[in-house]
Amino acid sequence: MGNSTDTRKPVILVTNDDGFRAKGIEALIEMAKPFGRIIAVAPDEGNSGMSHAITIKTPLRLKKRSRTDDVELYSVNGTPVDCVKLAMNQLFTNPPDLILSGINHGSNSSVSIIYSGTMAATIEGSLYNVPSIGFSLLDYGSNPDFSAAVHHGRPIIEAVLENGLSNRSCLNVNIPVLPMDKIKGIKICRQNNGIWREEFEKRTDPRGQDYFWLTGFFHNNEPDATDTDEWALANGYISIVPITTDFTNYKEIDRLNQWNFNNQDQKYAAKNR
Amino acid sequence: MGNSTDTRKPVILVTNDDGFRAKGIEALIEMAKPFGRIIAVAPDEGNSGMSHAITIKTPLRLKKRSRTDDVELYSVNGTPVDCVKLAMNQLFTNPPDLILSGINHGSNSSVSIIYSGTMAATIEGSLYNVPSIGFSLLDYGSNPDFSAAVHHGRPIIEAVLENGLSNRSCLNVNIPVLPMDKIKGIKICRQNNGIWREEFEKRTDPRGQDYFWLTGFFHNNEPDATDTDEWALANGYISIVPITTDFTNYKEIDRLNQWNFNNQDQKYAAKNR
Repeated sequence: MGNSTDTRKPVILVTNDDGFRAKGIEALIEMAKPFGRIIAVAPDEGNSGMSHAITIKTPLRLKKRSRTDDVELYSVNGTPVDCVKLAMNQLFTNPPDLILSGINHGSNSSVSIIYSGTMAATIEGSLYNVPSIGFSLLDYGSNPDFSAAVHHGRPIIEAVLENGLSNRSCLNVNIPVLPMDKIKGIKICRQNNGIWREEFEKRTDPRGQDYFWLTGFFHNNEPDATDTDEWALANGYISIVPITTDFTNYKEIDRLNQWNFNNQDQKYAAKNR
Repeated sequence: MGNSTDTRKPVILVTNDDGFRAKGIEALIEMAKPFGRIIAVAPDEGNSGMSHAITIKTPLRLKKRSRTDDVELYSVNGTPVDCVKLAMNQLFTNPPDLILSGINHGSNSSVSIIYSGTMAATIEGSLYNVPSIGFSLLDYGSNPDFSAAVHHGRPIIEAVLENGLSNRSCLNVNIPVLPMDKIKGIKICRQNNGIWREEFEKRTDPRGQDYFWLTGFFHNNEPDATDTDEWALANGYISIVPITTDFTNYKEIDRLNQWNFNNQDQKYAAKNR
């Protein structure tokens, strides 16, 4: 991209974690259509909470679902990451110019990125050095209004197609549930420090055996910080967090080196116990 | 920990992704036994490649499998992260002093951390601010020799119990397949930049339908870098990479801010197309 002598239309891989029938992927295809030719490859079924899971015990099948001049749609009996891997391997001779994931039905801000299939597919895309963007709307319903997301998402696609992203970096875009003209703008943010606090609901089945349903609520560990995605979303902005695939905690390296595992006067030595 | 007036024995939560019957978790319990009382909660079945997946569509069941004075063992019909969540919620009044995951049958170095259930459970533990360590042995067999890992892993547990880890940080420990006395020592490393290159194997079923098996090989994008986990392991060291749960790419924030989404002379504006 950014090569003005290249008049070829960009090719865009679209995926999601809510499945190929979800309203969110329809909205994302709508968002992306002005920018290029679309190959959409999404799971057969909903895959929320599947994170970066890959399918290794069962084989995958790739089904063509529909085709128009500008949009080919496929489904896969696997996870969002399976979709990206299989698409990259089987459907492209040259890598696509852009990978888009979503629009997720629900937030992927803060620590939710860790559990998110939408963002796992996005991160997987960035491993191939293809600019990748994950979009999520803060509406958990099955039939949300994606029009504001489509409208405000396009400038983000435009900017990424023009400027690219750093290698092995991708974007986590979250969109608040607001009318189109009530969205205040776009904020570049860091990932909020938060946690999902579980409250498993314990029930007893008809045979007297206990079972547990995962429930929980989000807790923001830094509600006053104004540079986070949580703050931006709570204050009417679209949040963009640039995401890395290098999970090293560099600050911790120096501290660990002081533990002297290998020095002559090593404190922590392998010995027989 | 580190409170010398506290003579209470540390409580250690142990989990894995290969299932409660795996030889690796038996070895990890053996490694941890000298340090405290152990509550082990692991998946019913193998969960390799499940990453940070959580179970939201089906209920979870927690089965007590065995109990001795020092070790209680449970299994859960879910993912490694489910095990940590359910254990933290149902089995502890006070949080454990340490969370250990593994020993994984196979490497979780470099980018493999993203797909790993072992490391997802470790990362989940660190979200609770409990010091968490994931151990992996570079042997994919079902019956590896874990004795060197047990021997050399204990000083790491000792150091972490004494010094703690920074909040929301955990350790990714990988152990090369070498005899106990051939392991050169422990290296604190950064995560290698690598990628799994897929080579899906396409087959045709008896009804003439194509299906795909995920295969692939690891490619090291920086084979000459000497500060990575890949280098340490290839050169006879145990690698420790400190891992963060903040996936923000801070270097990219400044670059994205220059895109001027919200300035008066904004280049990328939401408009009708």
